[in-house]
Amino acid sequence: MRRVTLLTDFGTADGYVAALKGVIAAIAPAALVEDAAHDIAAGDIHGAAWALAGYWRLYPPGTVHLAVVDPGVGSSRAALALHVDGRFLVGPDNGVFTHVLHGAADASVVSITASAFIRASVSATFHGRDIFAPAAAHLAAGVPLDRLGPAVHEPVLLPLAAARRSEGVATGTVVHVDRFGNLITNIPAAWVAGGAAVRIGGRVVPLRRTYADAAPGDLLALEGSRGMLEVAVRDGSALVVLGAAAGTAVSAG
Amino acid sequence: MRRVTLLTDFGTADGYVAALKGVIAAIAPAALVEDAAHDIAAGDIHGAAWALAGYWRLYPPGTVHLAVVDPGVGSSRAALALHVDGRFLVGPDNGVFTHVLHGAADASVVSITASAFIRASVSATFHGRDIFAPAAAHLAAGVPLDRLGPAVHEPVLLPLAAARRSEGVATGTVVHVDRFGNLITNIPAAWVAGGAAVRIGGRVVPLRRTYADAAPGDLLALEGSRGMLEVAVRDGSALVVLGAAAGTAVSAG
Amino acid sequence: MRRVTLLTDFGTADGYVAALKGVIAAIAPAALVEDAAHDIAAGDIHGAAWALAGYWRLYPPGTVHLAVVDPGVGSSRAALALHVDGRFLVGPDNGVFTHVLHGAADASVVSITASAFIRASVSATFHGRDIFAPAAAHLAAGVPLDRLGPAVHEPVLLPLAAARRSEGVATGTVVHVDRFGNLITNIPAAWVAGGAAVRIGGRVVPLRRTYADAAPGDLLALEGSRGMLEVAVRDGSALVVLGAAAGTAVSAG
Repeated sequence: MRRVTLLTDFGTADGYVAALKGVIAAIAPAALVEDAAHDIAAGDIHGAAWALAGYWRLYPPGTVHLAVVDPGVGSSRAALALHVDGRFLVGPDNGVFTHVLHGAADASVVSITASAFIRASVSATFHGRDIFAPAAAHLAAGVPLDRLGPAVHEPVLLPLAAARRSEGVATGTVVHVDRFGNLITNIPAAWVAGGAAVRIGGRVVPLRRTYADAAPGDLLALEGSRGMLEVAVRDGSALVVLGAAAGTAVSAG
Repeated sequence: MRRVTLLTDFGTADGYVAALKGVIAAIAPAALVEDAAHDIAAGDIHGAAWALAGYWRLYPPGTVHLAVVDPGVGSSRAALALHVDGRFLVGPDNGVFTHVLHGAADASVVSITASAFIRASVSATFHGRDIFAPAAAHLAAGVPLDRLGPAVHEPVLLPLAAARRSEGVATGTVVHVDRFGNLITNIPAAWVAGGAAVRIGGRVVPLRRTYADAAPGDLLALEGSRGMLEVAVRDGSALVVLGAAAGTAVSAG
Repeated sequence: MRRVTLLTDFGTADGYVAALKGVIAAIAPAALVEDAAHDIAAGDIHGAAWALAGYWRLYPPGTVHLAVVDPGVGSSRAALALHVDGRFLVGPDNGVFTHVLHGAADASVVSITASAFIRASVSATFHGRDIFAPAAAHLAAGVPLDRLGPAVHEPVLLPLAAARRSEGVATGTVVHVDRFGNLITNIPAAWVAGGAAVRIGGRVVPLRRTYADAAPGDLLALEGSRGMLEVAVRDGSALVVLGAAAGTAVSAG
């Protein structure tokens, strides 16, 4: 019995997520399906890639992670299935697996083309239902990866801004804004010394260990749950206070 | 082991969905419960019926689909359980099963009245917990449909606007606006020839095969995932661009 | 096989919920995980406590309920695991279990401190992943409660406003506003006689049995699904019509 997780930008008002689940249930009735995230902003590949990076490896080997944020549906972009460090992943070849592949010790990638494993009739607008969910279900049912189609050697990778260090100062950018309005940067927290100040949007923000070390409503910077520097407001939203967004420059030193 | 899917307009901020799940777990502990859609607009029976239509038949026979969008809760409207083409459905008699019944080859419908299969105390405001979830759980546990109550011969059906064809021009209306701002119409895409133009809200929109055939930000019409004509904006929202809503007139020819 | 339910204020755009699920799947692969509510307002402990109260006891004994609304993450607040009337609960010691404990016949509470049952590395910002989910998974896998840590004798309880009765008039407050804009009060419906009028925000609202007893758009008061007096608008939102919020005064008599 394998688990299949679902990440999409479908929301939960139209039943699109349930179409994926129905297809999976019909092909792999013993698979356990778990929702990962369905409120990714429409077409936000970066946001999907970031979210996926936070959980795919926490699941046990054999898990199948479906990630369908697919603004290029119906175009010539490939449909991918991956086996990375023991987990399977399925989704469009648009960069959604960038973080997964960057951190991989061992990765196989194929293009889903074998007609035995996709729906008989494929729409131009809903490959989640017609290609990705069937492939995920067949993987969950034990079909070997290489039966889905030929190897892909250069899957699309998102261009990720790199943080830098120079003369004790780290510079980088905000790469994700989460539901709480926390601004997650690409600067490794380990780069930033204890007494450092963090600069963002014209403000100087003190570095703390945890939210409780700031007064309610105050800005702080801290190490986030994936080891990256993060800017937050205690009991509030750094997004609202700073008006920052993905791409905003940050420095620390 | 049967699956039970849940569609509601409860949202996920109040725990109401979990009350349904708790009731099901207590009655049918081996049932697998899957969320279908919980962000249906409050009381939007048409939206619920449309969403349900997109997935109920994709699930394998034996699945139980719960659909609780129930603005008439506590009134004299009946509580229904259905067996349609191998799947079970449970919900209020308010039209939410209209599309399911329109496409049915074989349908049995009963009114849930047998006290053995509803909660001992039934509230006036939460039949999802007190009537529908127990009935769904008992069906999942193998109770035959006809033990839930007497047959219903004329379940409520929503009045659905029909599309028409005349002299090569198809006319219809928008019937659903989805999360992406796509405008789904009631005009079968098969009615519309390749070179046709689609008219909506004073605009003439070209017919394309897929989103990628339009430039980003441009309007297009295409065949949607259920075979109906759909108006969209590539990487954008036709809802925003056109200000259209369910009921807006559309023609194609 | 035990069920684990998840209540958080994480939303479903960042993948945080899936991190909890991945941790649980790795520790207790046979556990069934069900989403309870993820759109609790950020940091809203009262809302989380109210939502949890509506379902925790409906689930069968042995169920593990995770409740992670945790604005004090990283501070010195304790991490709790509870066994209450046959169900397990896991979450921060911030009052989220107030209603559960108020209604309990039998309750054991421990502080989660045993390193064998938490992640090797604990972040300062995501105890849901690092402490609460592992503890919930171990409970689901059969680890006895008292192995997680020492007993806690005075868990934090939220100060709850009490309703009063005097000379036939009940007075109380709105304690929760739900997705439909219904205003749920702390006045037991049993206190209010059939012909009573309900006063809120300068309006006098008639008491009815169910929504259908009011005209569309009209205010009414009725007994809610947990036996408390509730103010609603038929096919509308009492929140919008009255502008009331948690804390608004209500009287009935």
